[in-house]
Amino acid sequence: MKISVKVPATTANIGSGFDCLGMALPLYNTITIEETVLPGTGIEINVLNDNASEDDLLTEHIPLDENSIIYKAVELLYNSIGQTPSELKITVQSQIPIARGLGSSASVIVGGLLAANELLGRPADEVALLSIATEVEGHPDNVTPAIVGGLVLSSQEDDGTILYRKLDWPEEWAITVCVPDYELSTDISRSVLPKEVPMEDAVFNAKRLGMFIEAVNTKDTDLMKYALQDRLHQPYRMKLVPGLEQIIENLKHEENVIGCVLSGAGPSILIISHKNNLDKIKSIVKETWESMNVKVNIMTMPVEKDGAQIITHE
Amino acid sequence: MKISVKVPATTANIGSGFDCLGMALPLYNTITIEETVLPGTGIEINVLNDNASEDDLLTEHIPLDENSIIYKAVELLYNSIGQTPSELKITVQSQIPIARGLGSSASVIVGGLLAANELLGRPADEVALLSIATEVEGHPDNVTPAIVGGLVLSSQEDDGTILYRKLDWPEEWAITVCVPDYELSTDISRSVLPKEVPMEDAVFNAKRLGMFIEAVNTKDTDLMKYALQDRLHQPYRMKLVPGLEQIIENLKHEENVIGCVLSGAGPSILIISHKNNLDKIKSIVKETWESMNVKVNIMTMPVEKDGAQIITHE
Repeated sequence: MKISVKVPATTANIGSGFDCLGMALPLYNTITIEETVLPGTGIEINVLNDNASEDDLLTEHIPLDENSIIYKAVELLYNSIGQTPSELKITVQSQIPIARGLGSSASVIVGGLLAANELLGRPADEVALLSIATEVEGHPDNVTPAIVGGLVLSSQEDDGTILYRKLDWPEEWAITVCVPDYELSTDISRSVLPKEVPMEDAVFNAKRLGMFIEAVNTKDTDLMKYALQDRLHQPYRMKLVPGLEQIIENLKHEENVIGCVLSGAGPSILIISHKNNLDKIKSIVKETWESMNVKVNIMTMPVEKDGAQIITHE
Repeated sequence: MKISVKVPATTANIGSGFDCLGMALPLYNTITIEETVLPGTGIEINVLNDNASEDDLLTEHIPLDENSIIYKAVELLYNSIGQTPSELKITVQSQIPIARGLGSSASVIVGGLLAANELLGRPADEVALLSIATEVEGHPDNVTPAIVGGLVLSSQEDDGTILYRKLDWPEEWAITVCVPDYELSTDISRSVLPKEVPMEDAVFNAKRLGMFIEAVNTKDTDLMKYALQDRLHQPYRMKLVPGLEQIIENLKHEENVIGCVLSGAGPSILIISHKNNLDKIKSIVKETWESMNVKVNIMTMPVEKDGAQIITHE
């Protein structure tokens, strides 16, 4: 049998939503699992890069050993029904840039899980899949929109449950994703965060997350400008993302810009704006990063409303 | 001239909304300002208690000296137009219990301000009134709903602006206010809060405030149960409110209860529930507190949709 799953990229945090907001984007990894014919061939994982010849940004490789996150996710699913995986060929066709804060790891975890679940006759429901995916990824904010699509507020509760709600992103707001040509590992980006934060920063972010939900629900641009501010992660990560501070500064007087935030743990940057004058925004980002010898790939895109989809079942 | 303003009580925090959520309730203080005829009589502030003879809970007095918050608020308003207040008789008819976490201080600040503003020919607009009221009170979460009514998410921004949005409280949810017969000053209740909090608690509350806004907007009771949880203030204040922990524990298995939270800085408790079986909830609270020799006044009430109103202008 051969199963292919197409999984969207995701951006997480989105300003005040540190570790709880995530949104699916229309860039995809396709994860294929085939049962191999010969017993004893074990697990083989291959990563093919869709755009490797076209774009220098996308030539990185996902680690291929059996400890890889895809293998972990598939193994946990098999284990959950008392089996162990073997004789599988897993292929990843990758369009999502690696280590850029665009949910590449979440996408392969989710793709591997969904393909293996299909192969096994769907023993796991959405709750179980979300739970395994979160266990492998460490937090639910990327894997949840990768599975269910759209803009999602999610939380892992003390009993392990993943609680989530989907929200409607206002059509009027453009999302521009700016991907620089350097990597930043999530581990490093997490290591700079403090264990304790000032109470006033905690209150600052809580208010802003409330504003975020209200602004999205009521398409309130004025409120969204405040809602995209953050004091829990972005200030600490600023130094790991050369160019971010200057880009925020250079965009400050652009009236159509609603906010400029880190995508996930960075280094990609997300710009939320009105739909006019996007070329101006793009040229500011491009020029700022080019002046620091950083190449950048800039894409304006809608929210991907659908989560992971099974596209081949042979 | 004689101006009377009726100002609602307010409950703030409401679980995860520490220092930013507030809601007007249908208990009122009436603040009257009269210009006195004789020059040189200065400012006289009197507090009358509507319920003093009926109810032992309500016999406290608002401090009467010129440093009182009413005087400060009125003085700031006069100063904002280059004047100083004099020859005024200010009377407070008080129905809102003092030092119980029900916005008694916010109500007299707002009432004094609005009455003085009317007396002066309305020199201050809502923005200015919110700003002065917040300056006197220290935070906007009680004064904002006292002025505008309803359930309000508010924030004082760095430039001093009070940013707020009104939300619709679902009619299906009952609000039961439980007022014990002991006082707790906001200053003491604030003094037990730490200056720094664990990052995970900051994330916990931010997620929950997002859930709160979403739950209220979509009348999502399941989500509201999570949204009412808090780690920024309630755990620290628990020891200042004897009975709270036991009441939460004793209500845990009541299916109609959505949440049980401190009202403002306490000691009053707010119970959010479905509208059935309210008597059961009330008797649990009454019995728990009575077993600790605490008398309690319990009232189920709707949200007050209107803010402060001028009721006399002679």
